[in-house]
Amino acid sequence: MTRTSTFVPSGVISLTTDFGHKGPFIGTMKGQILSRFHDAKIVDLTHECSVHWPDEAGFWISRAYQYFPAGSVHLAVVDPGVGTGRDIIALVHDGHVFLAPDNGLLAPLAATDSACTAFRLDAGVHARFGITTVSATFHGRDVFAPLAAELASGRRRPDELGPPALDLVPSLLEEPQISAGRINGVVVTADNFGNLISNVDGSLVSRLENPVVTVAGHKIPFARTYGAVQPGDYLALINSFGVLEIARAEQSAAAGLGLERGAPFVVEDVSKRTDA
Amino acid sequence: MTRTSTFVPSGVISLTTDFGHKGPFIGTMKGQILSRFHDAKIVDLTHECSVHWPDEAGFWISRAYQYFPAGSVHLAVVDPGVGTGRDIIALVHDGHVFLAPDNGLLAPLAATDSACTAFRLDAGVHARFGITTVSATFHGRDVFAPLAAELASGRRRPDELGPPALDLVPSLLEEPQISAGRINGVVVTADNFGNLISNVDGSLVSRLENPVVTVAGHKIPFARTYGAVQPGDYLALINSFGVLEIARAEQSAAAGLGLERGAPFVVEDVSKRTDA
Amino acid sequence: MTRTSTFVPSGVISLTTDFGHKGPFIGTMKGQILSRFHDAKIVDLTHECSVHWPDEAGFWISRAYQYFPAGSVHLAVVDPGVGTGRDIIALVHDGHVFLAPDNGLLAPLAATDSACTAFRLDAGVHARFGITTVSATFHGRDVFAPLAAELASGRRRPDELGPPALDLVPSLLEEPQISAGRINGVVVTADNFGNLISNVDGSLVSRLENPVVTVAGHKIPFARTYGAVQPGDYLALINSFGVLEIARAEQSAAAGLGLERGAPFVVEDVSKRTDA
Repeated sequence: MTRTSTFVPSGVISLTTDFGHKGPFIGTMKGQILSRFHDAKIVDLTHECSVHWPDEAGFWISRAYQYFPAGSVHLAVVDPGVGTGRDIIALVHDGHVFLAPDNGLLAPLAATDSACTAFRLDAGVHARFGITTVSATFHGRDVFAPLAAELASGRRRPDELGPPALDLVPSLLEEPQISAGRINGVVVTADNFGNLISNVDGSLVSRLENPVVTVAGHKIPFARTYGAVQPGDYLALINSFGVLEIARAEQSAAAGLGLERGAPFVVEDVSKRTDA
Repeated sequence: MTRTSTFVPSGVISLTTDFGHKGPFIGTMKGQILSRFHDAKIVDLTHECSVHWPDEAGFWISRAYQYFPAGSVHLAVVDPGVGTGRDIIALVHDGHVFLAPDNGLLAPLAATDSACTAFRLDAGVHARFGITTVSATFHGRDVFAPLAAELASGRRRPDELGPPALDLVPSLLEEPQISAGRINGVVVTADNFGNLISNVDGSLVSRLENPVVTVAGHKIPFARTYGAVQPGDYLALINSFGVLEIARAEQSAAAGLGLERGAPFVVEDVSKRTDA
Repeated sequence: MTRTSTFVPSGVISLTTDFGHKGPFIGTMKGQILSRFHDAKIVDLTHECSVHWPDEAGFWISRAYQYFPAGSVHLAVVDPGVGTGRDIIALVHDGHVFLAPDNGLLAPLAATDSACTAFRLDAGVHARFGITTVSATFHGRDVFAPLAAELASGRRRPDELGPPALDLVPSLLEEPQISAGRINGVVVTADNFGNLISNVDGSLVSRLENPVVTVAGHKIPFARTYGAVQPGDYLALINSFGVLEIARAEQSAAAGLGLERGAPFVVEDVSKRTDA
C-alpha cells in the first residue's frame, strides 16, 4: 500500500511499441488517451522496436524511464500474444508505473528492484475502468491506452488494476556470461548510426583493468567518445545508457562488421593476458 | 446550421499525410498551428500513407477518427494536385471536422453518412481567416494548418469556410465485389508487421457461414487473433478497425505471399461449396 | 543586451536531429525537457537529417524556424564531435533562440543576420543551470534538453549561457556559383517524394529571364507547381521554402535521375543563350 502510494502522477505517458509509423495505430492510442485525459503529455519513446520480440522494448524502457519526470506512466506494447490468454501487468518502480503484457518485457526491470510492486490485471478491470469495447488484436488502443489515461490523470491508482503479481514471465534477453577477466556478451540492437548496443552493463567492464572487445575477427579498444578516434576507426565505449556499445567513428559499425541483434562478442582484460 | 453546430471543438487536431518524416514538412505545419492556437493538442495519425494516392489516407481516417475525442479536427494532406485548381473541402461528420483536398480522399466518409455536411472553401477564405501568404506547393502548412487551428480553437465555425459542397470528387478506392457466397476484395495497404489490410468490411464476411480466403495460391482460414495459430501459419481475421486482414503469425504475410497494395483475393463460403 | 531581450519565450521547443526513430534517444530528450518544464510544447522538426552532416539540419532550420511562434527555442543536435572539445553555441535571431554544436550547423543562419547575437557556452554553464550528470556521448539529452527547457520556460535568458561568440565554425554547405546568366548549384537533400532540394535560393533564379535546369543529361523547364505538368514529367520550381527544387510529377526525381545529396546542376538563362 505505502509503496503504491509512492506513485504521484506527473501527467506524462510514454509509449513504446513495435508498430513502426505506418497506419493509425499509435495515433489512435493517443486519441484514446486524450479522450479520457485531455491534459496528458504523451511522449513517444520509440515505435521501432524489433517486431514480435518484447525484450528490446524492455531493455530500452528499463534504461530510459529515469529521464522522465517521476510519476510518469510507461506503456509498452510489443505483444505477439494479444487476444490470447496472456496477462497484462503493471509495475510500480521508483515512482513510475509500467504497463505491459506479461511476456518477459518488464522482467528485467522487476529483477532490479526487490521493492517494486507488480499487479496482474484481472477479469474485472475493464468494468472497473469503464472499458466497454475490446478488439481481439489491438489492446494497445483498447486496453493499455485507457488504463494509462486513468493512472496518469490520478483518477485511479495502480493497485486498482488487480491483485499483486507474484511470478512474471521471464525475459528472453540473454545475460552476459562472466568469468575471470572475460565477459561474453551479445548485441541487443543497433541505433540509427549503426552503433551496436549490447547487454553488457558498464559496471562489469569497469572491473577489467585493460578491456578490449573481440568481435567478428576485430580487436576493438575502448574510448570515451566517438570523436576520440579517427573517422572510420572502430571503438567500444560505455554509452549514455550505461551499456557497452561497439561503434565506428562517423560510420556504421553494424554495416562495417556485418552484425545485428544476437551477435556475440567477448570483452577480455588484455593486461591479464599479457601477464600470463 | 443545426448540424454544423454539433461540432464542439475539443482542441485536438490529427494530422495524416504522405510526407514521411524527412524534412521540416510536418514540423512546420505544427509550428503554424501553435502560432495561432497555443493550446492545440496535435496528434500524428500517420505520415506514411502511400504517396500521391489519397485513398489510403481516406481509408484510415474513416476507420480511425472515432478513437479521438468528439470535436476533433482531422487534417489530411495527400495532395498531388496542390497549387492547381483542385478544391479543398471540409466535412462535418459525427461531431468531428475533416479537412482535405477534394480528390476522393473524404468521399468514402461522406458516403457513409447522408447527414454529414460538406463545405467547399471559396476564394475569400484566405482573407476571412487571415491567411496572407500561400505557397504553390505546400498548402498543408500555408492553408490547412491555419484553418485547423481556427476551427479547433473554436474561433471559427466550419460553415464559415465556404458554401455547401454538393458533389465531391469520387474515391478511387475499389469496392469489394459481392456475389452469392463469394467476395472479391483487394489489399489496401500493409502495416509494419506485413499484415495485409483490405477493403472488405467485416460485416460482409460475417454473412458467410464458413469463410476461407484464397490468395496467391494459398487457402487461408479465419481465426480470432494472431496467437490462435502457430507461428508461421497464415490466417485471416477481422481486424481492430473492422476490416478483413490477411496475416502470418509472428511473420510478414506481405513478404511471405509477395503481395502489396492492389493485390486481389477471394473470400468463399466453404460450407456452400461442399454442399454443392 | 537589448537584442537578447527581444526573445520572449513562447514555450515552444523544436527538435532537429540525425537520430532517426530507433531507440529512446528523442524520447528521453523530451522526458528531460518535461522534467524541468511541464508545459513545454515540443515539436519534432525532423530526425531524419543526413547523419554526421550538420549542414542539412542547419539548412532546414534556417528555412523553417519562421513558421514557429516568435519566442521558440530550436534545438539542433547533429553532433559527431559530441564529448570532444567542440563548443555549444546559442544564437538569438529574429526573436527565436537556436542551440547547436559549434560545427557549422548555425553558421548560415548567423550569416543572414548581422544583428543576431551568438553566445558560446562556458565551463560554468552546467553548474549555473543545475546540470549535474553529463554523459560523454549524448549531450542532446544531458545538456541541450535541460538548457532548452530553462530558456523556453523563461526561467533563464540566453545571455546567461556564456560570453558572446565572435567566430563560429563555418558551414560546409556549398554556396551556389553565380556568373552571368548561369548558376551552378548542388542538391542538399531529397524529401519523401524524391524531390531534390538545392542550395539555390529562388531570388537568384528570379534574376534570369528564361531559366532552364540542366542535370544528369536532362534539360528541365520551370513550372509553378507539380500538377502544372504531366505525371512523369520533370520540372524545376521554387519550392515552399524558397529554394530551387527538381521534381517529377507524381514520381521520384531522385530515383528517376539517380541523384542524391551533392549532385551538381546548372541553371541557365535560355533567352540569353538563344540571343548569342
